[in-house]
Amino acid sequence: MRPRAFPILVDGKWRPAAEAGTFRAVNPATGEYLPGEYPISLWTDIAEALAAGRRAALEMATLGPEPVARFLEVFPGLAEGRKEELVAAAHGETALPSEPRLGSVEFPRLIDQLQQAAAACRDRSWCRATIDTKLNIRSMLGPLGGPVVIMGPNNFPFAYNAIGGGDFASALAAGNPVIAKSHPGHPGTTRILAEAAREALGEAGLPLAAVQLLYHFAPEEGLRLVSYPSVAATAFTGSRPSGMALKEAADRAGKPIYLEMSSANPVFILPGALEERREEIAAELFQSCTLAAGQMCTKPGLVVLLDDPAGRDFVNEVKHAFEMAEQVTLLGPKVLEGLVESSARLARGGAELMAGKRQPSGPGFRHNPTLFTLSGKEFLRDPAAFQVESFGTLSLIVKAADKGEMKEIASRLEGHLTGSIYSHNDGRDDRDYAAIEPILRAKVGRLLNDKMPTGVAVSPAMNHGGPYPATGHPGFTAVGFPAAMIRFASLRCYDHVRPDRLPPELRDRNPTDTMWRFVDGAWTQKSL
Amino acid sequence: MRPRAFPILVDGKWRPAAEAGTFRAVNPATGEYLPGEYPISLWTDIAEALAAGRRAALEMATLGPEPVARFLEVFPGLAEGRKEELVAAAHGETALPSEPRLGSVEFPRLIDQLQQAAAACRDRSWCRATIDTKLNIRSMLGPLGGPVVIMGPNNFPFAYNAIGGGDFASALAAGNPVIAKSHPGHPGTTRILAEAAREALGEAGLPLAAVQLLYHFAPEEGLRLVSYPSVAATAFTGSRPSGMALKEAADRAGKPIYLEMSSANPVFILPGALEERREEIAAELFQSCTLAAGQMCTKPGLVVLLDDPAGRDFVNEVKHAFEMAEQVTLLGPKVLEGLVESSARLARGGAELMAGKRQPSGPGFRHNPTLFTLSGKEFLRDPAAFQVESFGTLSLIVKAADKGEMKEIASRLEGHLTGSIYSHNDGRDDRDYAAIEPILRAKVGRLLNDKMPTGVAVSPAMNHGGPYPATGHPGFTAVGFPAAMIRFASLRCYDHVRPDRLPPELRDRNPTDTMWRFVDGAWTQKSL
Repeated sequence: MRPRAFPILVDGKWRPAAEAGTFRAVNPATGEYLPGEYPISLWTDIAEALAAGRRAALEMATLGPEPVARFLEVFPGLAEGRKEELVAAAHGETALPSEPRLGSVEFPRLIDQLQQAAAACRDRSWCRATIDTKLNIRSMLGPLGGPVVIMGPNNFPFAYNAIGGGDFASALAAGNPVIAKSHPGHPGTTRILAEAAREALGEAGLPLAAVQLLYHFAPEEGLRLVSYPSVAATAFTGSRPSGMALKEAADRAGKPIYLEMSSANPVFILPGALEERREEIAAELFQSCTLAAGQMCTKPGLVVLLDDPAGRDFVNEVKHAFEMAEQVTLLGPKVLEGLVESSARLARGGAELMAGKRQPSGPGFRHNPTLFTLSGKEFLRDPAAFQVESFGTLSLIVKAADKGEMKEIASRLEGHLTGSIYSHNDGRDDRDYAAIEPILRAKVGRLLNDKMPTGVAVSPAMNHGGPYPATGHPGFTAVGFPAAMIRFASLRCYDHVRPDRLPPELRDRNPTDTMWRFVDGAWTQKSL
Repeated sequence: MRPRAFPILVDGKWRPAAEAGTFRAVNPATGEYLPGEYPISLWTDIAEALAAGRRAALEMATLGPEPVARFLEVFPGLAEGRKEELVAAAHGETALPSEPRLGSVEFPRLIDQLQQAAAACRDRSWCRATIDTKLNIRSMLGPLGGPVVIMGPNNFPFAYNAIGGGDFASALAAGNPVIAKSHPGHPGTTRILAEAAREALGEAGLPLAAVQLLYHFAPEEGLRLVSYPSVAATAFTGSRPSGMALKEAADRAGKPIYLEMSSANPVFILPGALEERREEIAAELFQSCTLAAGQMCTKPGLVVLLDDPAGRDFVNEVKHAFEMAEQVTLLGPKVLEGLVESSARLARGGAELMAGKRQPSGPGFRHNPTLFTLSGKEFLRDPAAFQVESFGTLSLIVKAADKGEMKEIASRLEGHLTGSIYSHNDGRDDRDYAAIEPILRAKVGRLLNDKMPTGVAVSPAMNHGGPYPATGHPGFTAVGFPAAMIRFASLRCYDHVRPDRLPPELRDRNPTDTMWRFVDGAWTQKSL
């Protein structure tokens, strides 16, 4: 008898899926299937989750932020209690190292994010309560009025997991129920997180349909889901083709969708920086490119420098570091396929393979860190082709003939999450900086100086976002509280509404005595 | 010899258009053409405006808010100087009364909006500067990095004019150049405003391509424009079909587009309200429905009440007021056609024509205020069909069999700009209110109590927006400063950027000593 697949979490109950089939996770280090079958849901599961999510949204509108904050506080504690199991599951499913990554870095980040979301939810300043006392018009950000669909990526089984990750925490903290779709690369990790979440729901007094989990469904069901009338919004982190298909479906239906799709994270290294600290920067670049096998949304995939002796020395140093590096294990077969395709595309385009020529050895999805170089002239012949993200350990260094060409390269960039500029510490290349910065500034969400882009701090000032096609809208961040929450909010104005019918946040009395409100043009914590 | 068409304003120069043809405005009161031919531009005009707009965006990024604020202060003064001419032009082109509307209401609103935008621009708090001192990450809202396309509607030749109106002021105040497309109903009004704007540009020291004007182009050129690589974003106010076509084109290209497309502005009148002040509400409703010949985005187009004796009396009173009303002059032939179509659609759907049976008399585009009624049961048979906006003096009253049916009608509403609930002042129908409010709240941008929705105050707390299909995104308002500006902003994060390279808003020293900044989780006006 065929083993039964794991149940899905719908309307507070773990129950068997209406299966279109099943799938298993793969251990990337061995290429072998892991135990445990997970269901691929038919539409009927999705429809049931939607109906329950809609009811939960209405119920949550009457409950206010208290039970949500409680959930976001209780859940991390319950996840902590299963940390060992979670780290083991995530390591098995992703081949990311248990240490120094999953246990001591990513898991604490998961916990910290949830706690920050809880604090923002409790604080209530995020809703930007705005009061015009003269006209008696009051407004605030509030929930969207329906369930939010969260589709998580493969590369952060904790911090960006569809259950418990940044988007999940943001959508809930803004008062919305969540329908999560696990990434098929780590269903087991997601299952454990969902079990903890289910338990936390009960303790917090939230509707039990506030967090639901489906493991998988056919792509066309995904398109139907994100455009479905009762869906409020979607957050998707993943590949550009999948993101584009979802965006088109959601856009057609007028449904907000927040996408984090791709980024080459251009790094401009000015001559002064190489003059001052060439080896140091080469080491930083290598580290940033190979961190987590290059499977970071902010991996520097495109480096621009001058084709002069210092630039060529730098390239040689980076090349040497790439060549000396051990082979890496990727998250799954698609990442490997993507890198093979990227290499072929770059080679066809005229890029020169500097490192990564050896065939990887051993089972699973292995890859040798790969480095290409290209002349600025060739880059400018087809700028779009050379700034496509190569997800994994593959980067491209573009050698510009002169500073004018560097500037021209900057001006041909599309939207990316980040852009970095390295320059001399004594300011001698400030003019070069000033030539490139305004161009780069408009193309990226986060601009860095003398720093590689990997490492996305969970800060209120963070922007993990950027212009299209890095994301779908240049005004929002996916990381950082409270800012990431406003993606999942509607602007709710109350005009001449009777005082006892206003939400607490908009009444004369400040409901927490500490929340910030924008009253008659000034931010204040005072009651009226 | 054929008279030459008016020149367009491109890159600071008034110059002849590359004409695909010409058009003339029509006097709606007579149906006759007004003097003056206006050009329908070929793509080459648009391309030139785009190139100049792109250069202006780069230049404005280095200038900061000062010259923009100056422009927004100088321009209203210059427009004031041509007020008489403007009121005459707008009256001739729209048939809206010079008094009490154009001269004493809408023109002052235009001036006030521009001054509010100038103040917000100078104040800088709008950019939500956020500083994390511990991590040295800083972010703020800044311009989008390209020209913003503004397409204005027919119904507010001053307040929403593509030159000088709310979207124009918002986009500029956020630091973006504007490419305006005049509404073909009032090109003459727009031309005078653009002449004043052109003069103000010079005085303010803004790039002369910061404000450009095209009068008209073919719809397919519009689709190409909003999706063009160098366009930053679009704001469109107008009909749903045009808005949907533009939205699809912009979405496909990943270009932000803000649309205000349609709204039936549902008004729920609870039994207690009719019991208390039936005649008063009937008069208010009639006034709100017929204000500006019903050509307001916030006209109550859908009224829901109980089919009981008080409800029927109310309907009769409203019917009487509609029947007694004088015929109105509409803005143009398309508005009249739209109303004829709406009437036919409602009649086909089973609605009963209560008022507006007489044929209008006289030249131009005349219409008799028209009122339909429909049973709740019939409404629920095809809710989508009965909540389509009928732009102009046409409203529908839905008579619900009971309170459950009222609630069901609320739950079948799509997104609208506003939703009103009238109830008894002594609170006797608070339970009825509580049943409908949470449902209606999630469907509208602005919720009103005991007040008709027409009249959109320019307040920081306003939301002139709402869920799709009223607009394209539920999180933004088109009216009110500074909130309306954030539609035209990108989130710009600075990570580890050297202090002297930060924009003034993010340096330790507060650049104005009064702007509000969010520093380490608290709003403050202090320097670090």
